[in-house]
Amino acid sequence: MLMFASSAPGRYNGRTMNLVYATPPEALEKYRGALDAAIKALAPPEPRGLYDMLRYHLGWADQAGQEVEGGSTGKALRPTLCFLTAEALGCPWPRAVTAAAALELVHNFSLIHDDIQDGDTERRGRPTVWSLWGVGPALWAGNAMRVLSDRALTSDGLPSAKGRQAARLLTQAYLEIIEGQYLDLEFERRTDIGVASYLDMISRKTGALIRCAVELGALVATDDSEATAALCAWGSHLGQAFQVRDDILGIWGNPALTGKPVGNDIRRKKKTFPVIHGFQHATGAALAALKAAYGPLAAGEEQVEEVLGALEETGAYREAQSLVERETGQAIEALGGVKTPLSPTAREQMVQLTTFLAHRDR
Amino acid sequence: MLMFASSAPGRYNGRTMNLVYATPPEALEKYRGALDAAIKALAPPEPRGLYDMLRYHLGWADQAGQEVEGGSTGKALRPTLCFLTAEALGCPWPRAVTAAAALELVHNFSLIHDDIQDGDTERRGRPTVWSLWGVGPALWAGNAMRVLSDRALTSDGLPSAKGRQAARLLTQAYLEIIEGQYLDLEFERRTDIGVASYLDMISRKTGALIRCAVELGALVATDDSEATAALCAWGSHLGQAFQVRDDILGIWGNPALTGKPVGNDIRRKKKTFPVIHGFQHATGAALAALKAAYGPLAAGEEQVEEVLGALEETGAYREAQSLVERETGQAIEALGGVKTPLSPTAREQMVQLTTFLAHRDR
Repeated sequence: MLMFASSAPGRYNGRTMNLVYATPPEALEKYRGALDAAIKALAPPEPRGLYDMLRYHLGWADQAGQEVEGGSTGKALRPTLCFLTAEALGCPWPRAVTAAAALELVHNFSLIHDDIQDGDTERRGRPTVWSLWGVGPALWAGNAMRVLSDRALTSDGLPSAKGRQAARLLTQAYLEIIEGQYLDLEFERRTDIGVASYLDMISRKTGALIRCAVELGALVATDDSEATAALCAWGSHLGQAFQVRDDILGIWGNPALTGKPVGNDIRRKKKTFPVIHGFQHATGAALAALKAAYGPLAAGEEQVEEVLGALEETGAYREAQSLVERETGQAIEALGGVKTPLSPTAREQMVQLTTFLAHRDR
Repeated sequence: MLMFASSAPGRYNGRTMNLVYATPPEALEKYRGALDAAIKALAPPEPRGLYDMLRYHLGWADQAGQEVEGGSTGKALRPTLCFLTAEALGCPWPRAVTAAAALELVHNFSLIHDDIQDGDTERRGRPTVWSLWGVGPALWAGNAMRVLSDRALTSDGLPSAKGRQAARLLTQAYLEIIEGQYLDLEFERRTDIGVASYLDMISRKTGALIRCAVELGALVATDDSEATAALCAWGSHLGQAFQVRDDILGIWGNPALTGKPVGNDIRRKKKTFPVIHGFQHATGAALAALKAAYGPLAAGEEQVEEVLGALEETGAYREAQSLVERETGQAIEALGGVKTPLSPTAREQMVQLTTFLAHRDR
C-alpha cells in the first residue's frame, strides 16, 4: 500500500504490493554520469540560442542559458535499458553509450513536440520549452534534438553494417512513436476505442522506443539473435506495463511527485486505459458522466470529480494495475526465456527495475 | 525584362536578362515520374489519417484523402540536382532514386514545420497542413515525412559504408537546415543583421540540402573525391543564388505565380537580402519607414508600400539580383572546374538549370 502515491488514497482497492523494490534500483543511477557527459558532448556550440533550449529542456541550464546544478531530471529509462542489456550480455557497458545517448535524445525530442501538441505548459515541474520560447523555436529545438541523435548514431565507432542496423532500428522505432502519437491524438476525439486499439497505440507510442533500447543494447553486445529476441520480448512487456502505470499516474498520481496537476489526463481527454475500461463497464449516471467529460466541450473541475467517481465505480484502477502486473510478470518470464547465460548482477538489476517500474509513483 | 514577374514592374531597374533559358529545363520534368513513384511507395498504408496529410501536402490527395489528378506541385529541385549529378558522372540515374526521394521528403518535411512556425495558411495555392488539421497533427505529419526519408536511406541497396555515409550526409544537412531555420526566426526580431550573417544563415537554411543533393548524387555514382568537391562547389553557389532569388520573389514576386500574397515577406518581417541591403543603405524617411515596418508592431498595408518605396530608393532589387547572378556565374565556373569528364548532355542541363533558376519567377 505504501507504494501507491494517490491523491485520493481511499479509492485504491488493488492487492497489496510487494515492497522489496520500493527504492529505485541502482541501475537508474549507475550510468547517469557517462550518459550526461555523452549527451553534453553531442550538442554543438552554436547557434547558442537553439542549443540553449535543448540544455534547458534537459535540466542543465536555466531560461537564460546559465548552467544549473543538479543536471537532468528525467528517469533516463531507455538508456538504462540499453546499458543493462549490453552488460547482461557480457559487453562492457560504456560501448553502448552512443546508442544510449541517441535513445535519450529521441525520447526528449518527442517530449518537446508532445508539449507543443498538447499545449502543456509544465513538464518535470518547470515551464515547457514552447511556453517559454514560442512554438516556432520549440519546433526546431525538438527537431535538433532528434537530428543530434541521428548524427551520434551515424558517427559512432560501430562497424558499418551494425551502425547501419542501429540507425535502421532507431528510425523504425521513431516512425512507430510518430504513428502512436498521431493515434493518441486521434483517440482524444473518439469514445469508441477498444482495448486492442489502445494496446496497439501504446505499443507504438511508448513501447517502440523501449523495445528499441533493448535491441540496441543487444546489437552492440552480440550477434546472438535468439537472446536478442527473448530480451526484446522483455522490453515489449515492460513497455506496456510502463505505459499503463503512466496512465494510472496521469489520473491518480500525486502532483508533487509527477510534476503534473491532479486529473491532468482527464482534463486533456486522454483515452488512457482506465478511461477505456470505464467506458466499457460504466452504466447509468457513471456512463453519462464519462460521456459528458469526454465530449467536445472542455471538462471543468466538477467533471474531473465525476470522472474519478465513475472510474472508481467500474474498478478502473484495480483493472489497470492488474494489467500492469500481468505485463510485468510476462516481462520477467521473458527474461527467464533467455537461453544464453546472462551476467547475474545485470540480470538481477533487470528484474528489480522491471518490478520497480510497475509500482513507481512518478 | 520579360523574365521579371513583378507585381510592381515599374520598380524593376536591373539589367536585361538573357532570355535563352526562359523555359524550365527538361531536367525538372525528366525524373518526375520515377521520383513520384518512389515517394508514393515509401508511405505506409496506416494510420490512414497520418499519411493522408502527407499525400495532401505532396499534392496527391485532397483534404478528404481522395486521390487527385495532377500530382505534386513543387519544383523537386533537390531530387533533380541529385539525379543530374549522378548522370553527369556516368551513373544510370535510376540508381539515385532513393536518395532523391529522401531529399524531397526532407525538404517537404521542413516546409510543413515552416508553415507551422510562420503561421502561414497557404502554400502552393492550397491551405497548409496545420491550417486544415491543427498544429498537433501537422507536427507529426512533418516528423513522419522526415523519418520516412531516413528509413528509405537506411534501407537502400547501397553498400553498407556508402549507405552509412549517405545517412550521415543527409543528417548533417538536416541539422544545418534546423540551425538556419532557427537563425532565420531569430533574425526576424533583429534589425542589425549584416550581409555575412545573412549569407551564413541561408547557406544553412537552403544551401545545406542543395549541396547535399549534389553530394548524394556523386556518392551514388563515384568515389572520385575531387569531382565530388568541385560539384559540391557548384551546388553551394547555386544554393546561394536560389535563396536570394527566392528573397526577390518573396517581395516583388507575382502572387499568381508564387502562390503567395504580394509583399508576403515584408508582412512577416523576414530579414531577407533586399531588406538587409535596405537597412544598410537607407537614410532619412526611407530608414525610418524600414525601422517602423520591422519593429515589434504588426506591419499594415501602408507600411508594406513604404518598405517597397524604401527598397526602391536603395536599389535593393538590383543589388539582390546582381548577387544572384554573381553566385550563378561562380556556380557555372565551378562546373568548369570538374576535371573528370562529365556526360555532355547532363552537363548542358546543369548549366541550363543553373541559369534558369537565377531568373525564375516562381
